[in-house]
Amino acid sequence: MYRDKISQASLSTPASFIRGILKATASEDTISFAGGLPNPVSFPKEEIEESTVRVINKFGSKVFQYAQTAGLPKLREYIANRLNSTQGMDVKADEILITNGSQQALDLIGKVLIDKGDSIVIESPGYLGAIQAFSQYQPNFCPVTLEEDGINIEELEKKLCENNVKFMYIVPNFQNPTGISYSMEKRKEVYRLVREHNCILVEDDPYGELKFDGNPYGYISKEDFSGSILLGSFSKIVTPGMRMGYMIVRDEELRFRINTAKEAADLHSNIFSQYILTDYLENNDIECHISKIRSLYKSQCDSMIEAIKDFLPAEVRYTTPEGGMFIWATLPDGASTLKLFEKTSAQNVVFVPGDPFYTDGRSSSSMRLNYTNSSKEVIREGMSRLGKLI
Amino acid sequence: MYRDKISQASLSTPASFIRGILKATASEDTISFAGGLPNPVSFPKEEIEESTVRVINKFGSKVFQYAQTAGLPKLREYIANRLNSTQGMDVKADEILITNGSQQALDLIGKVLIDKGDSIVIESPGYLGAIQAFSQYQPNFCPVTLEEDGINIEELEKKLCENNVKFMYIVPNFQNPTGISYSMEKRKEVYRLVREHNCILVEDDPYGELKFDGNPYGYISKEDFSGSILLGSFSKIVTPGMRMGYMIVRDEELRFRINTAKEAADLHSNIFSQYILTDYLENNDIECHISKIRSLYKSQCDSMIEAIKDFLPAEVRYTTPEGGMFIWATLPDGASTLKLFEKTSAQNVVFVPGDPFYTDGRSSSSMRLNYTNSSKEVIREGMSRLGKLI
Repeated sequence: MYRDKISQASLSTPASFIRGILKATASEDTISFAGGLPNPVSFPKEEIEESTVRVINKFGSKVFQYAQTAGLPKLREYIANRLNSTQGMDVKADEILITNGSQQALDLIGKVLIDKGDSIVIESPGYLGAIQAFSQYQPNFCPVTLEEDGINIEELEKKLCENNVKFMYIVPNFQNPTGISYSMEKRKEVYRLVREHNCILVEDDPYGELKFDGNPYGYISKEDFSGSILLGSFSKIVTPGMRMGYMIVRDEELRFRINTAKEAADLHSNIFSQYILTDYLENNDIECHISKIRSLYKSQCDSMIEAIKDFLPAEVRYTTPEGGMFIWATLPDGASTLKLFEKTSAQNVVFVPGDPFYTDGRSSSSMRLNYTNSSKEVIREGMSRLGKLI
Repeated sequence: MYRDKISQASLSTPASFIRGILKATASEDTISFAGGLPNPVSFPKEEIEESTVRVINKFGSKVFQYAQTAGLPKLREYIANRLNSTQGMDVKADEILITNGSQQALDLIGKVLIDKGDSIVIESPGYLGAIQAFSQYQPNFCPVTLEEDGINIEELEKKLCENNVKFMYIVPNFQNPTGISYSMEKRKEVYRLVREHNCILVEDDPYGELKFDGNPYGYISKEDFSGSILLGSFSKIVTPGMRMGYMIVRDEELRFRINTAKEAADLHSNIFSQYILTDYLENNDIECHISKIRSLYKSQCDSMIEAIKDFLPAEVRYTTPEGGMFIWATLPDGASTLKLFEKTSAQNVVFVPGDPFYTDGRSSSSMRLNYTNSSKEVIREGMSRLGKLI
């Protein structure tokens, strides 16, 4: 009835393969390496219950009323202080805007920066949710090959020279979908190039704190983010269900525009959850909590790599993440993981085929494997099923 | 630095006058008739605390994990059942999508239906938040004069004949900003005309249940909403801070498009709050709760009308709402409430001048007055200050 009324923007927006899968594979028997779900044992249930009771009693009606678009000042101060102490940054609370997870930040960035046909650089393969969010604004995607140590610098320079690129979107730490991290050299080169070409650097860092060993890398722009938009999230270190993310924008004009777009999008993020999250962060040892998640995920990652070695053919290449939630496994050239997916899902084991992580419609021989939401036993069983089918 | 990078969509989006005011008038001494805040005494604090503890214990990690885009099935079932019993509708849970308040529904509608230059009909004066949300998609606004008994039907018919109108957006019950409600005749005429012109009817009904006496009017399309998009919200009957709204869409293609846009916007609404709200609704007498809010707002509305009669000049005309949160007061022709606002805000009493409720840039002699968030004494004091300045 309404097909002729749908906007071009909507017609350009792909539905998420991942969320389609999550719905399709709700069956109890299916082993899913497809989602990007944090391990539920990491959710601080009791602590959040305590914080809820505390904020209702302490702040009363305020936790239920309409609130500022930019977010709860105390939460924004907490985020600024934490980044300043952990990454040696110089962020002010006023430069932070609370969003419904990083996904909303991506939508707002698209809305405020992309006119139809504008060029934007993304990693290839790149984060599916970003491709989806930006697609709505009909950009000219300029994909740049992602290698084991970060984006290909020559290709990036070429794209920046040939196109008037509005912004470049990357996930430099434990990237989604590949799990790889940028080397120090590539971080410097990326920063130099975006500055040289007056291109905004959008850094998405949802997994940054989930580095298995040693200190997190932090943002590429941590020393000077005046030319960048930085995204962060509590989804992977506290809970995704509350949809609590943030963006950091130093440029005043840009911040005003993003704030207005957020206002038009939903007035403000859930203030009840902002109060609860702030209280939780202030009253618990978050570093200790994160370090527990790190060791859990490290052992799960180790199990998956061991299982890959044990069950998948030797021709299968795979990344070895230093943190985060994903491994990227690649079959010999010519194989199609989309076709493989049809077979494996019938055998109750699923992953995300590589195809939707590319904007050029290519067929991919790679797959994204998530290890954070399955036990060691389940990982081995799933990988064994997968090995038989490859 | 980035002025040349901002999208046309963003440059077309006005910042909200209301939220500017709310920020500017944070001073304790200011009497504000400007906001649209529910009275905080109406927030069920203890009950929500109980529900929070209950859902964490009952559902555990599920209340913290990623969830379906469309929203919690139990909440959608509750909404469908309630509408079916209170309005005699035939809504299925699957036709409901949970949004971050009605504001997000407006953004999603704009995104999925408006191509630049498309015609849409809105009330004049119309809801500011809708004007803001739709402006982002650069429509051709076709304003139709709103009268005391609803939109002007002749003008509406003319606009529908002269333009290929994609949708018509109205607030038929206790409209924002005027407080007026559509007569039965105009409801029928509106419905007949949109059907005749194959125009989608978007009905926003955030205040519908706040009818002071007798049964709520319900949606114009309650008997057949296959050509409509219906919006609802818990902001005015439970709490706005959780940002819990919903939209009802029968058309499958349209619903799929809106769901995909929601997925790209923020994956899903806060699931923790969806669980809490559902538990609250299932375990408390919501009808009794709403009836208390109704009598409170009725008495506040009565106080404001009495104060208008006592303190404002006799030339000032005003609406007499049957429910909701607002009165629309109009000074004699030629007066500017925007100019008046500058004077009164210096004297610590504020309202929303009429100007931003129009899309044609006119200067307005009207003002929106909110009565739900001030006591009888404050209403009289504020109106007395206002009377002296007019």
